[in-house]
Amino acid sequence: MTPASAPAASTAEAGGRVLDHPALDEIRIEGVLHALSDPMRLRIVRELAAAEGELTCSRFELPVSKSTSTHHFRVLRESGIIQQIYRGTAKMNGLRRDDLEALFPGLLDSVLGAANRQVRRVGEDR
Amino acid sequence: MTPASAPAASTAEAGGRVLDHPALDEIRIEGVLHALSDPMRLRIVRELAAAEGELTCSRFELPVSKSTSTHHFRVLRESGIIQQIYRGTAKMNGLRRDDLEALFPGLLDSVLGAANRQVRRVGEDR
Repeated sequence: MTPASAPAASTAEAGGRVLDHPALDEIRIEGVLHALSDPMRLRIVRELAAAEGELTCSRFELPVSKSTSTHHFRVLRESGIIQQIYRGTAKMNGLRRDDLEALFPGLLDSVLGAANRQVRRVGEDR
Repeated sequence: MTPASAPAASTAEAGGRVLDHPALDEIRIEGVLHALSDPMRLRIVRELAAAEGELTCSRFELPVSKSTSTHHFRVLRESGIIQQIYRGTAKMNGLRRDDLEALFPGLLDSVLGAANRQVRRVGEDR
């Protein structure tokens, strides 16, 4: 399975280390909502949206262990919310904005808006 | 704790059987997204939205046991998505549309839109 929006060139770049991503028609609203229902994952998505580009995993200073962090990124990838691509030795993370917008118009923006408002209202997530 | 949008009269009607609901400032985006991430619960919310009013639990013909169904309704209530009020012996369910819209503008409609499109695309949820 290849990520719908990952450029084919990434395979060569990665020397074959390509991570599984759901194709567009495999992404389900239940999985997306589940992935977004965790405070740490929601925080990752908010930071990726604010960055408006790819970020390495190490750019996120999450108050959780490395293995928990890796788990959260995997849940986000397997649900179709982010793509993870090796560029050299760095694993880069990016939102699949266009794919999500095509499937669920307005959903990501309304979740991001709600999450950002909540942070202003009750403070940062744990 | 009293539901923010439940009329005070419901206490008397119910003869004291009042169910706990989160107040507006206790509702969290993570809890709402988690509650919506289950196919059965998403189906309940879609049907409530289509009904544009209150429905008894028995109006939902869900392919799950009575206790599982009760669990799903409780998760929806405790996350702040629905209110459940006894009217006589009937437990009535209604969406807390105004409360959700005040906290997370556009969220419920974008989730409902996404869920309805998915049903048209891949069929009804199990």
